[in-house]
Amino acid sequence: MRRIRFHDGDDVRLGELVDGEIHAFPNDGSRIAGEETLDPTVVDVLPPCEPSKIVCVGLNYADHAAERNSEIPDRPLLFLKPPNTVAAHGDDLTLPTSKERIDHEAELGVVIGEPASEVDADDAMDHVAGFTCVNDVSNRDDQDVEQNWVRGKAFDDSAPIGPVLATPDEVPADASVTCRVNGETTQDSTRDQFIFDVPELVAEITTYVTLEPGDVISTGTPAGVGPLSDGDEVEIEVEGVGTLRNTVTIP
Amino acid sequence: MRRIRFHDGDDVRLGELVDGEIHAFPNDGSRIAGEETLDPTVVDVLPPCEPSKIVCVGLNYADHAAERNSEIPDRPLLFLKPPNTVAAHGDDLTLPTSKERIDHEAELGVVIGEPASEVDADDAMDHVAGFTCVNDVSNRDDQDVEQNWVRGKAFDDSAPIGPVLATPDEVPADASVTCRVNGETTQDSTRDQFIFDVPELVAEITTYVTLEPGDVISTGTPAGVGPLSDGDEVEIEVEGVGTLRNTVTIP
Repeated sequence: MRRIRFHDGDDVRLGELVDGEIHAFPNDGSRIAGEETLDPTVVDVLPPCEPSKIVCVGLNYADHAAERNSEIPDRPLLFLKPPNTVAAHGDDLTLPTSKERIDHEAELGVVIGEPASEVDADDAMDHVAGFTCVNDVSNRDDQDVEQNWVRGKAFDDSAPIGPVLATPDEVPADASVTCRVNGETTQDSTRDQFIFDVPELVAEITTYVTLEPGDVISTGTPAGVGPLSDGDEVEIEVEGVGTLRNTVTIP
Repeated sequence: MRRIRFHDGDDVRLGELVDGEIHAFPNDGSRIAGEETLDPTVVDVLPPCEPSKIVCVGLNYADHAAERNSEIPDRPLLFLKPPNTVAAHGDDLTLPTSKERIDHEAELGVVIGEPASEVDADDAMDHVAGFTCVNDVSNRDDQDVEQNWVRGKAFDDSAPIGPVLATPDEVPADASVTCRVNGETTQDSTRDQFIFDVPELVAEITTYVTLEPGDVISTGTPAGVGPLSDGDEVEIEVEGVGTLRNTVTIP
């Protein structure tokens, strides 16, 4: 199932995305789609979840480690994106001005479904609601000179997520993770290239940090990260999830 | 005014702390204390605000920079604590096990009152609701070996805050910031020793990151940080705010 969250007037509603149509859930809290269908291109799509935090993983594909001249880590490299970073599918991203280089990073996002603290890898998937696409937008000017990547990674609009939450059965173990900028493919890899897989990430993170429902683990980006410019259209596609599309404004 | 937030049965209530008594606000949403008074030592004190993020400042006192063998920074060093880190006055902090050194860090916390994006230093205080105490509990084992301080600074219970939100008029420009462990003073400095003052911090952070009401800026710690052990009682006192007291459990 691919669950979509959207604005219907002032209401926040949920539905299932089936063959390019939203089958809306009724407003009685039920999670079973009724008769009502909507066109996803005419509604205001919201982020598929409301993370209290996004825990991001650095260098989780060997090829990206190489392009950043970084060694393969012996445990996951972690960093944080707070709620101000979240943007939705279709949003225009307003990015920091006067930077030499702001990059896209295509990532598979893991959406937490049940509170997770000190979870064993064997039990990790019991705490996962599903997957989404994340664009880990990165301001290299500051990232490269700061200890903690706050100006570099935690600026407003630096984490578009969506367009849907796909349940785990929808996303193959070797799902492709790709990025296109203005229609040109810049990143193209698969989930089976991860250095640390999803259960290992959940186990390691929850040794220290309790994850709440709606929180997202962004699992790292493959090779091919590249710059974004004012006016660009950037698309992140994860096989089984769909395509997260945003335009870029750099004032 | 010193505003306290507390549990009254299942209800979350607010009140004003006056001469060691809570003058409770009525349940009609009014922010003017009525006749009802409660003893703060018998209620369950809650964090004075509900931050979506805590933006922390590293090395904002010259003496602490020296004890960490760090140079004085030319702009604020920033890092993040997400909501899982928040604990209340009176809570028992359950800290990571099997670490060589977990330190206390006494800090003045700035509580945001109005949304703040790209705010000039001259206007910064219009966005500040007041001040609180923060203990920036730090796991040095991991902090010293990771790029971004997630295991080192973002673990559960690593940000006790409270006991109240004191409005800016309550906190002198040279307010003392102190820490005591089991009654022994370990840190003792004053707010006028800041390298970057509160308006400068608000301006710099909001260039990149929108701050929301309830968010906290933790303004850095003075010299004298030191280790915490299982069973310790740790107190952070900021002049004009009061004393944040917690016990420590290390399983």
